[in-house]
Amino acid sequence: LEPLKKLKAWKTLESEPILDRSPWLRVLSDRIELPDGRVIDGYLRLDAPNFAVIVPEDSSGRIGLVGGYKHGVGEVDLQPPAGYLEEGERPLEAAQRELLEETGCRAALWTSLGTFVVSGNRGAGKAHLFLARGCEQIAEPKGEDLEILVPTWLPLETVRSRWRAGSFRQIATIAALGLALDHLTQPNPAGARQA
Amino acid sequence: LEPLKKLKAWKTLESEPILDRSPWLRVLSDRIELPDGRVIDGYLRLDAPNFAVIVPEDSSGRIGLVGGYKHGVGEVDLQPPAGYLEEGERPLEAAQRELLEETGCRAALWTSLGTFVVSGNRGAGKAHLFLARGCEQIAEPKGEDLEILVPTWLPLETVRSRWRAGSFRQIATIAALGLALDHLTQPNPAGARQA
Repeated sequence: LEPLKKLKAWKTLESEPILDRSPWLRVLSDRIELPDGRVIDGYLRLDAPNFAVIVPEDSSGRIGLVGGYKHGVGEVDLQPPAGYLEEGERPLEAAQRELLEETGCRAALWTSLGTFVVSGNRGAGKAHLFLARGCEQIAEPKGEDLEILVPTWLPLETVRSRWRAGSFRQIATIAALGLALDHLTQPNPAGARQA
Repeated sequence: LEPLKKLKAWKTLESEPILDRSPWLRVLSDRIELPDGRVIDGYLRLDAPNFAVIVPEDSSGRIGLVGGYKHGVGEVDLQPPAGYLEEGERPLEAAQRELLEETGCRAALWTSLGTFVVSGNRGAGKAHLFLARGCEQIAEPKGEDLEILVPTWLPLETVRSRWRAGSFRQIATIAALGLALDHLTQPNPAGARQA
């Protein structure tokens, strides 16, 4: 990986908001200088809220998902519980709140599966992925304002089959389930961090 | 999964473009009707080009990645070859073109790992994920217009460790590598389709 160290960052000379629908979305038009000195105008970036995605496992080894209509997909989709971080909220706090709201569960053991940028070119916020083990239902799911969510607990191997078969529709679902299934299958996966 | 069948789609009553930087980005403000009859104004959607992500494997079992500065990440990142579909191009054609441009390789066997929406809420384009086996270098990498890309071939287990450790920065990288590593490790993964 030595040759990568020679790669240089772009310089942002200016960053002009061309659409502001805070806190949901800001579109920025960047004037950038490339490492070779060329200056490029109008490179678009998206400023969008960070969110948490939580893969919950209950004491019998089932995985918790929520079904709901997703307007970005245009269809009903099954996905792990997830939601935007609120103002001032840390990722783990948001994950715990969303898990409780969407499934009514509290988890015994939280593991961070990493933080990832939604778009390599545009930004568009970061996804904080978590595994939540030892989930126990302590309340009724509250759901979301706009969305009717149906909590659905499935055996791990069913989730793995659906993950492999392309049955889930969102890229963050594929990323989170891939890491979580690996973690739940490998006893000591490298690098996972207790949250 | 029976209860999911009762979930209804939102109705889009109107869809107004509020920013148009085609072909890179259109922001749409939707007027939607929820299944309970409530009408919501200003629900944002993003129209962005679909792209292909290709996980290449060579004949000695190494995985091909490219290092480069990514403005959405704000840093140099290592990722599988990837790129936007051109006008009229099919996903597999785009994948083959991008693999050749970014690594100089042609692959013997292509497998589709699925197509996934970037944002469940906003849309923002679809990622077509591919596994490309039996890669053979037949040309020099050409790279991209704005980006200097450094092709980097690593042993599968090194890639798996980095994937587990959160060393890659983009969510599409995590999704694509998760499915590809599973496919390369399981002899008959369910559902994968020869492209």
